[in-house]
Amino acid sequence: MTEPPFRRVAILGNGLIGASVQLAARRAWPDIETVALDAGDDVSKVAGADLVVLSAPVRANLALLDAVQPHIAAATVVTDTGSTKRVICAAAAARPAMDFIGGHPMAGGAKGGAANARADLFDGRPWILTPSPGNPADAARRLDAFVGGLGAVPHVMTPELHDRFVGAVSHLPQLTASALMHVVGKLAGDAGLEIAGPGLADTTRLAGSPPDIWKDITATNDDVLRDALDELIDALGHLRDTLRTGEGVDAVFTSACRWRRTLDRSR
Amino acid sequence: MTEPPFRRVAILGNGLIGASVQLAARRAWPDIETVALDAGDDVSKVAGADLVVLSAPVRANLALLDAVQPHIAAATVVTDTGSTKRVICAAAAARPAMDFIGGHPMAGGAKGGAANARADLFDGRPWILTPSPGNPADAARRLDAFVGGLGAVPHVMTPELHDRFVGAVSHLPQLTASALMHVVGKLAGDAGLEIAGPGLADTTRLAGSPPDIWKDITATNDDVLRDALDELIDALGHLRDTLRTGEGVDAVFTSACRWRRTLDRSR
Repeated sequence: MTEPPFRRVAILGNGLIGASVQLAARRAWPDIETVALDAGDDVSKVAGADLVVLSAPVRANLALLDAVQPHIAAATVVTDTGSTKRVICAAAAARPAMDFIGGHPMAGGAKGGAANARADLFDGRPWILTPSPGNPADAARRLDAFVGGLGAVPHVMTPELHDRFVGAVSHLPQLTASALMHVVGKLAGDAGLEIAGPGLADTTRLAGSPPDIWKDITATNDDVLRDALDELIDALGHLRDTLRTGEGVDAVFTSACRWRRTLDRSR
Repeated sequence: MTEPPFRRVAILGNGLIGASVQLAARRAWPDIETVALDAGDDVSKVAGADLVVLSAPVRANLALLDAVQPHIAAATVVTDTGSTKRVICAAAAARPAMDFIGGHPMAGGAKGGAANARADLFDGRPWILTPSPGNPADAARRLDAFVGGLGAVPHVMTPELHDRFVGAVSHLPQLTASALMHVVGKLAGDAGLEIAGPGLADTTRLAGSPPDIWKDITATNDDVLRDALDELIDALGHLRDTLRTGEGVDAVFTSACRWRRTLDRSR
C-alpha cells in the first residue's frame, strides 16, 4: 500500500464513475475517508476534503465549481471526470483561488449507474489529466499518484488535445452508433432486426447510451465534433457515390483495415 | 439423426461459410458424401451431386451458375450462400432448366477463411431462403430440411425483401464501421488510438473486413445501400447541425435506445 496522496476525498455525483472512484480509492487506501455526495445532497459536506472529485455530467460539474468554492480550503485539489476538458478548465481558470486539474478516466461500461460500480473499473485504463501552468507541482504529483492508485495509467495532455482525441475516439463513435441504430431500426423494423447477426449488435452496443449525458458532451465539444462528423459524412458520401465501381469501398476499407490493426496493437 | 435430404453435396468456394457447411453437414449426416471445391478446382467434379452449394463471393457465384450447368442433372438443387439475392436469383431465373433457390446464412465470424470454419457456426442462426414460384415444392422442402439439419433456422422471403433487410441490418453497419475506423484513425492517429476505450473497439469490430468481398455486395445491392446511406448521412447531418442545442442528440438517441432494446429482445 502506497502512502495515500489524499486523506479525505469528497466525490460529487454518484454514478458509475463516481461510485467506482470511491470503491477503487477504498481498495487502494482502506484508511482514508471518502464521502460520496449525490445531486440533492448538501454540498457543504465537502468541507475538510483535501481532494474534491466532480463526477456529475459535464454541465452539472460546471455548476458544482461555483457551489463547492465557499466550502473548500486553499490547499484543496479539485478535479473532475467529465468527457470534455476545455470548457471546465477555462471555467476553473477564472477562479485563481481554486486548484483545479481536469481529469477523464477512459473507462466505462455498457450499463451506467452506481449499481454497476466496480473497484477495478479503472485498472489498466488511461486516465487523462490536464494540469495548467498555474497548478502547484505538488497538486499535479499527488493527483497523478491518486489515479495511479485507483489502477489507472495517467496520461498528461492539454485540454485542447484531450478534446480533439476524445472527440475522435469516443464521441464520434457514440454519435455514429446511435445514428446507425436509429436508421437501421427505421429501415428494417422489428422483422428485419430479427434476422440481424452479431455484427449489428457489436456496432450498435453504444446505442443504449442515454441522451442527457451526451447533450452536455456535444455542447461542450461542438467544434471538434462538427469537423469529425463532416469527415464521416464525406467518407459515407464517397461510398454512396461509388457503390457500383467499388472505388470507395477499396479506399475506405483498406484504410480502415490498417487503422483497425493499429487499434488492436494498442489494446 | 434425420433422414438426409441430399445424398451427395458439392460445395463450391472453400471459405469460412463453405467449409462450415461441409463440417455441419457431416455432423448432421455422417453417411452422406460431401465434396468441397475451391477456386482452381475442376468444376466437373460436381457431377452426381443432388445439391450444389455456391459459397464463393457474390460475383464468383454468378459465374459459377454458368460453369456448373453442363455438369448437373435435372433433379439437382442449386443454392448459394451469398449476401445479396436479387441479382443471382434473376440470373438463375434465366436458366429455367436449373432448379435454383437462393440462400443466405446470417452467420459469420470476426475472422474468415476455411481455417476458422466450425460445425456449429449456423446453430440457432437465421438462414434466409428465397425460393421462386418455379421451384418444385419438393426442392424447397428438402433445402429447408438441409439448412435446419445444419443447425440454422430457415426464414423464407423474397429476394427483394432479403436485400432490403440485409442492406439495413448487415451491409449498412459494415460500411459504417469501416468509414468510422477510417475517419477515427485519420483524426486521432496512433497517439489518439492509444487512449481509446472498448466502445471504439466494439463499434469498429467489423472494420477488419476485406474490401474485395464487399465490392461484390455493394455492387449488387447498390440501390438499397444508396437509400440507406442517405438516411444515415441525414441523421449524422442533423446531429452536426444541432450540437449546441442537443435537439438531434435527443431525437436520435431516444430512437436508438428504443431500437436497441428491440434488437436485444430479438437475440
